[in-house]
Amino acid sequence: MDPHMISELLVSNSTKIVFLIMDGLGGIQMEGKGGTELQAARTPHLDQLAEVSSCGLLDPVGPGITPGSGPAHFALFGYDPIQYNIGRGILEATGIDFPLTEKDVVARMNFATVDSGGKVTDRRAGRISSETNQRVCQKIRRGLKPGAGLEVIVETVKEHRGILVLRGEGLRGEIQDTDPEREGVPPLEARALAPEAKETAARVQNVLSQMGKILADEPKANMVLLRGFAKHTHYPSMKERYGLNSLAIAAYPMYRGISRLVGMTVLPSVSNLEEEFKALEENFSRYDFFFLHVKQTDSRGEDGDFDAKVAVIEEVDRYIPRVRALKPDVLVVTGDHATPAKLASHSWHPLPVILYSSYCLIDGVRQFDEVSCIQGALGRMRSVDLMPLALANARRLNKFGA
Amino acid sequence: MDPHMISELLVSNSTKIVFLIMDGLGGIQMEGKGGTELQAARTPHLDQLAEVSSCGLLDPVGPGITPGSGPAHFALFGYDPIQYNIGRGILEATGIDFPLTEKDVVARMNFATVDSGGKVTDRRAGRISSETNQRVCQKIRRGLKPGAGLEVIVETVKEHRGILVLRGEGLRGEIQDTDPEREGVPPLEARALAPEAKETAARVQNVLSQMGKILADEPKANMVLLRGFAKHTHYPSMKERYGLNSLAIAAYPMYRGISRLVGMTVLPSVSNLEEEFKALEENFSRYDFFFLHVKQTDSRGEDGDFDAKVAVIEEVDRYIPRVRALKPDVLVVTGDHATPAKLASHSWHPLPVILYSSYCLIDGVRQFDEVSCIQGALGRMRSVDLMPLALANARRLNKFGA
Repeated sequence: MDPHMISELLVSNSTKIVFLIMDGLGGIQMEGKGGTELQAARTPHLDQLAEVSSCGLLDPVGPGITPGSGPAHFALFGYDPIQYNIGRGILEATGIDFPLTEKDVVARMNFATVDSGGKVTDRRAGRISSETNQRVCQKIRRGLKPGAGLEVIVETVKEHRGILVLRGEGLRGEIQDTDPEREGVPPLEARALAPEAKETAARVQNVLSQMGKILADEPKANMVLLRGFAKHTHYPSMKERYGLNSLAIAAYPMYRGISRLVGMTVLPSVSNLEEEFKALEENFSRYDFFFLHVKQTDSRGEDGDFDAKVAVIEEVDRYIPRVRALKPDVLVVTGDHATPAKLASHSWHPLPVILYSSYCLIDGVRQFDEVSCIQGALGRMRSVDLMPLALANARRLNKFGA
Repeated sequence: MDPHMISELLVSNSTKIVFLIMDGLGGIQMEGKGGTELQAARTPHLDQLAEVSSCGLLDPVGPGITPGSGPAHFALFGYDPIQYNIGRGILEATGIDFPLTEKDVVARMNFATVDSGGKVTDRRAGRISSETNQRVCQKIRRGLKPGAGLEVIVETVKEHRGILVLRGEGLRGEIQDTDPEREGVPPLEARALAPEAKETAARVQNVLSQMGKILADEPKANMVLLRGFAKHTHYPSMKERYGLNSLAIAAYPMYRGISRLVGMTVLPSVSNLEEEFKALEENFSRYDFFFLHVKQTDSRGEDGDFDAKVAVIEEVDRYIPRVRALKPDVLVVTGDHATPAKLASHSWHPLPVILYSSYCLIDGVRQFDEVSCIQGALGRMRSVDLMPLALANARRLNKFGA
């Protein structure tokens, strides 16, 4: 639905919506395992919830499209994942709480090693420590002369990873990655991918050659590689779009970052499932919308470890009674995309969804898995349509038309 | 999905995709037959394939829309069937291997008989032989004076059918059919359907009146009727769009023509199922994508011959083991549209689809027919979305977004 139309239909009430998102939840059948991860997992509480809910299958972006975490989450929050496709640089920056402004172009920065001929010999600079990263960032700050009207900020993320922020008027994000994606060749030039980005590209190139000189005497981190250039733009907040005061409960920086982009309040420190669900309980009276993010389903899927992913799902299942005890008006359980252990990567497959409210159409689905949910009342839907449906079930949307 | 988005996600590998297309495959239940054509047919191999695949229902163009062969096939190849709707003239021309240029406006040309008052007495000129057609075409070529800057080409297709090509700068395709679609009235004027087409319409009208004079002494083919005017435009090829070297195996000219429009290599001569499947086997190592077209399902459906259509389906079923023995990475079995014997014509009904790969989500569908496939993991989808899904299953699409 057109977000403006949704905005015009909004009514305010005190209902509460919980989105419990297991990252990479969806799977496919794996040989010798008797089904998909969800089919194999013992999930009595999720199955019980499915029995009184509407179920279905979600397409995160579109048929055949394997989404990154950014688009997959934007879609869940009701933001068109293609329109709001954001660069890796922005995601990294928001993940470390960096306060972006609308004058900023950001790129992900990897420290790397080049030989005397300028060829990359290690794209990760031997995975230097975060302390070394901080030290060389400080060295860059002291030595760099950005030129008139430009501010350049470098920040450590972790190990060899950091961000580069260019701040100034009229900067553009259409800059080619300088990371050649392989070793034995020099870094690429920071070429403009649009005529309007030529000046920004030249400034990036100047910054890069200064950095090369500043870092020349470093044993490992003697160059930087940049990718995912993007200009920061304003995102309408969940409050502006849906009138929701929203809380994000996520252990991993990137998901906190995405939440912050759409104006959620972000809990600063939760590091495991127990802390996450406890935070949900403790904050339940203070917000309208709760995004609770479980990372491990995706991590174990990426590892290709079917059994470990099953175990994470089963662990989450044991928390379901605590979530239901809070009596949320709407409870959605799903994932952002599929990460089948068989593929050991994100994938294009649809993923199952449960939508519970006192007003949902109860279908015949009694098990929460990909195949059972085919029969669900929600049918096959796009993730981006989930939020309007949640708002409706929370009685937060007026009638359209007379 | 936006084709530009798909193009940007492409990766190259050596996977092979087979589209086995039974024209007019879909059906509806017919009284006394115990079901649809597919329900009645004994298809052990297709059922076995369905059991390890994702199944679903395809909508070729849109709800309630009965597609012609052109749009139905363009959709299967991932080309928006509304945007790429092509005129009958173009289809006919490509079907006879006529080398179209971007200066060409083409119409299908039927020889007809008119009486002394100019009224059509036979819209098919008594179905003259192809030899007579060739003779009168030659007569037209000798007699016609197209005027400055215009080249006019007439080509025999078969019996009373041919094509008329106007070649020149600035020609337009928005010309009304001159075929009145009934007898007892004169041919219609070649009117412009857009102001920009006025000059082209006048030139067509001039050609037509010359033809009337040239053919005046013919006993049967003494006039031509034109329909399906269209300007030829460039179609992005399967190679450009998807990076696929594609082979079309089709016995009927029109399907070879459509394949050629999207840049497939077309096998020149296969005339029955055995030859088609043999051609697939012989060429399997040399292409990435294979379009194998079975015409008879549609022909028997058009005849209203339920049992004969069932027999064709059963015959194709017997070839499935040979296709699977080739171990294609992705095997799609479906049709372009429905041609229910009960209607004896193309129809708007959805049609079942099987998508097999090592990475498909296996649903509970165990029979390949319209009703069983409702329960499939692909759900109800548009034909145009099938190609991105096939590319994903062939691991030919990168992740979208960070």
